[in-house]
Amino acid sequence: MALTRIQKAARIAGQQLAGRQTPFIFNEWYIAALSKEVSRELMARTILGKSLLFYRKLDGTAVALSNRCGHRSFPLQHSTLDGDTVVCGYHGMRYNDQGEVVEVPSQASCGGISIRHYPLVEMGPVIWVWMGEPELADVTKIPAMPMLEDGWVTSEEYMDLKANYVYLHENLLDLTHLSFLHANTFGTPDYAKADFDVKITDDRMWLKRYVVPTRLPPVWAKPTGLEGKDAARITTSDFVSPALHIVHAEFYDISLDESERPDQRIKTAHIPTPATATETHYFVVHGRNFALEDNSVTEFMHQQLMAAFQEDVVGLQQQEQLMAQEEGEEYFEISVKSDAASVAMRRYIKRRADAERGLIASSSAVQTTATQQPQPA
Amino acid sequence: MALTRIQKAARIAGQQLAGRQTPFIFNEWYIAALSKEVSRELMARTILGKSLLFYRKLDGTAVALSNRCGHRSFPLQHSTLDGDTVVCGYHGMRYNDQGEVVEVPSQASCGGISIRHYPLVEMGPVIWVWMGEPELADVTKIPAMPMLEDGWVTSEEYMDLKANYVYLHENLLDLTHLSFLHANTFGTPDYAKADFDVKITDDRMWLKRYVVPTRLPPVWAKPTGLEGKDAARITTSDFVSPALHIVHAEFYDISLDESERPDQRIKTAHIPTPATATETHYFVVHGRNFALEDNSVTEFMHQQLMAAFQEDVVGLQQQEQLMAQEEGEEYFEISVKSDAASVAMRRYIKRRADAERGLIASSSAVQTTATQQPQPA
Amino acid sequence: MALTRIQKAARIAGQQLAGRQTPFIFNEWYIAALSKEVSRELMARTILGKSLLFYRKLDGTAVALSNRCGHRSFPLQHSTLDGDTVVCGYHGMRYNDQGEVVEVPSQASCGGISIRHYPLVEMGPVIWVWMGEPELADVTKIPAMPMLEDGWVTSEEYMDLKANYVYLHENLLDLTHLSFLHANTFGTPDYAKADFDVKITDDRMWLKRYVVPTRLPPVWAKPTGLEGKDAARITTSDFVSPALHIVHAEFYDISLDESERPDQRIKTAHIPTPATATETHYFVVHGRNFALEDNSVTEFMHQQLMAAFQEDVVGLQQQEQLMAQEEGEEYFEISVKSDAASVAMRRYIKRRADAERGLIASSSAVQTTATQQPQPA
Repeated sequence: MALTRIQKAARIAGQQLAGRQTPFIFNEWYIAALSKEVSRELMARTILGKSLLFYRKLDGTAVALSNRCGHRSFPLQHSTLDGDTVVCGYHGMRYNDQGEVVEVPSQASCGGISIRHYPLVEMGPVIWVWMGEPELADVTKIPAMPMLEDGWVTSEEYMDLKANYVYLHENLLDLTHLSFLHANTFGTPDYAKADFDVKITDDRMWLKRYVVPTRLPPVWAKPTGLEGKDAARITTSDFVSPALHIVHAEFYDISLDESERPDQRIKTAHIPTPATATETHYFVVHGRNFALEDNSVTEFMHQQLMAAFQEDVVGLQQQEQLMAQEEGEEYFEISVKSDAASVAMRRYIKRRADAERGLIASSSAVQTTATQQPQPA
Repeated sequence: MALTRIQKAARIAGQQLAGRQTPFIFNEWYIAALSKEVSRELMARTILGKSLLFYRKLDGTAVALSNRCGHRSFPLQHSTLDGDTVVCGYHGMRYNDQGEVVEVPSQASCGGISIRHYPLVEMGPVIWVWMGEPELADVTKIPAMPMLEDGWVTSEEYMDLKANYVYLHENLLDLTHLSFLHANTFGTPDYAKADFDVKITDDRMWLKRYVVPTRLPPVWAKPTGLEGKDAARITTSDFVSPALHIVHAEFYDISLDESERPDQRIKTAHIPTPATATETHYFVVHGRNFALEDNSVTEFMHQQLMAAFQEDVVGLQQQEQLMAQEEGEEYFEISVKSDAASVAMRRYIKRRADAERGLIASSSAVQTTATQQPQPA
Repeated sequence: MALTRIQKAARIAGQQLAGRQTPFIFNEWYIAALSKEVSRELMARTILGKSLLFYRKLDGTAVALSNRCGHRSFPLQHSTLDGDTVVCGYHGMRYNDQGEVVEVPSQASCGGISIRHYPLVEMGPVIWVWMGEPELADVTKIPAMPMLEDGWVTSEEYMDLKANYVYLHENLLDLTHLSFLHANTFGTPDYAKADFDVKITDDRMWLKRYVVPTRLPPVWAKPTGLEGKDAARITTSDFVSPALHIVHAEFYDISLDESERPDQRIKTAHIPTPATATETHYFVVHGRNFALEDNSVTEFMHQQLMAAFQEDVVGLQQQEQLMAQEEGEEYFEISVKSDAASVAMRRYIKRRADAERGLIASSSAVQTTATQQPQPA
């Protein structure tokens, strides 16, 4: 059927945007698990389509290996953890923490069997993994998570999202949706219409939104004492990497002078680790710099936020199901101004994926036409 | 494996017949919903593989739009109906009843966003939709449903059939199966052996079956008062369009002269609207021209008929599951004389589908070698 | 990602091994059902991807036909068995036990409709079927099942295995896994390390394992009276055909002279009949030559063995699910010495499948480089 001129143009532009068909980016640090998830019990998790095995050594160090036994493809998760080694539950191949077989029960030699070992870096409540080319693993490239570094109070969560990770990034880079998808939780009607700035560099995108004056939803109003007051709610959506998005927000009573305002900020790391093309491990690490001693505030905010983020999970899954059905000749998406950061993000992810697959010269893969700009204050 | 000569010939002939692999015909009026299904609650339904959104305006007019938001593919069924407009539940794009965005919350202009609007025509208990090229929509081409036009008493039903629509048409065009699939409901053993006529024109097929004398099953015997009598049961299966099949039946006491017989007829519209290649919306509108004042007759016949039609649903689903498994090099279907109308129907649907896809010259798409013949009385 | 040199070599070698992607071998006798499964009730079962219908004639002879009606693809399992004929539940085509239509209700002639008839041979508790080219069916090629021929006591079972049949053969040809997968049932820790011989001919593979001295698990110790004694457990894994594997085992008290030992042996037929690429009908016929009169021994051993074989089912299904996910560019399997027989088996199945598909000259299809060797005693 005929598309309109605008629909056709959107369809063509869409070919440069990452989406559910885009291959994964492997040369990137991803968060594999919350620290508390990895223990002396063998655990399997699919990351970028690969099944990984996780466990802790006796000294507490977390280990990630391929979950597939290199002998006969048995899932090692159904094996025995013996000291720091894993004894395959099928034929007893014993693996050390580097993925090398150190014992084959039925013969004297080890047969040269090995499976992939994945570098892990544990940082507070999260564990980063390198899925890419081993020689490119560089721990200095792990993105910072400032709420963990500054002594803030944090809490964390894991959610299973049955949708592609790109659309979670998209969701986060335009918080217009707070007024609609989150109308009953932490959105307010004025959110969608509030002024915003967009900043884009070659590999990072921000959208800063000024909701002033506004009334804060309970999740922010109660812990800050701003219930019933005309307040400012200033939020920055920050695409840090394909593996990390951080939302920064500050709140204050607009009747106060700047010098009188208590410093009340939150930072929420939204961490979309791709499992498959249509499933994402959605980790959240939330931190605040106020009411540091009050556990009930931590519990209250955590519960309120997770209820809201669950709305994203539901909405993104509904979107995924419809995209799976409707992708085809008539498919298009038309963008508006508040999509500028998210469109840049999707173009960036597409270029990164193409570069890894050798589809474009990798030297130009991270170049954009935008002038490099400083991070918003 | 080697097929017999007859099996091979059937396999080759089968390539001209529509089946579960045949693309949909778009330039056709289909019934999208029963009128009572469409309300002020947003409803989604997949038709010809497309997800559509249905609702009624404040004045009661039914509306059908694409269910996919033209901005970010959110299913509009999870949105808010505000007056006659739909406000997307994700980012708040507001659509009018023509599928045009009339408000983008995050900016002043509407961004030229629009989605497809599907013409609807409501006729009594059913709503027709045009899924094809907009300029070809012609309400005068909507097939007549005579039981709605003649003051008959009607009832209607919706069933979800997990099978391709072509096989429901096939089922209806040869009622031989009443003696077997419906042996315990409204079939009788003599049905399969009864004489029949077949008439075929370029785009319509009839099979008229004369079961005389017979004993009527309860669904017909009780309301007509023909229980225990030698009766005539004369049924015409009428393929009206890819979207509509009508069964006409008359019943009378064969001991009566033609002039003495009360006029006791039913017409049942069987309406197979394709959802996907393996799912069909199966609507039924049943009407009769006798016992017009008696609601208990309506209820009795409706309950009896739906029990029988549910046997078709089960049988067609069993057939679909086996076809899905067995389609391949050894697949064939051998036709018999009573399949003449249904084979012509499947050839016609195949030609229509091919013509829409440009596989054959559309001018010849609706031509057949059969001489045009009048509809049977 | 880069594989190691050994991984790459294993990946290349793996291309000669049968696996879940390998087409089925049709020209082979398979066990279709246990005798007790086939009765006067119509039963359908998928074998080598084809849906078959089974029933017994009035004289008790088992019959197998295509389950798909040659007229309109209705599954004949939902039909009526009338004497020795099957009357299709849709339009009443009546089939004789050769798959020929002998009555079409709606016309005088039979229309030349026929469906495939599959030769069956019933041997004690099992029924063999020939799925291949009809002219190659040769009952003298049905493999022997010695436990049925020698007056041993037998019991049999059916299990549904959601995995490819090749991996059940692989499982059986290397019983190293008894120490791990069956650690809690009939495996012992010394099993994996026991000496073994491998013998390979062009179409048959054996692995004989000498677990001496050992302590027997309850399934063998209790019926043989060898509880608490130093015993010998000598087991031969015997790949008889793609459709049959037989495990032979003998047990004795090693403190006795050979002349004093009672003859205590078991033979277990493991019968993997492919349903689809990822599902296998797993039949077991177990026999013993001791305690012949004691039914409680039969029951005890049957229950113990099936608990163990269920561990194989679970493990093979876990392996299948992981292979389905991980097959791709990085997939490899590295073999060890105890895999020699199973690697030969997988090469043989691959050659047979290729030969049937005409990919290699069939004359060389059953040739190997191994010297023909006698069956182990």
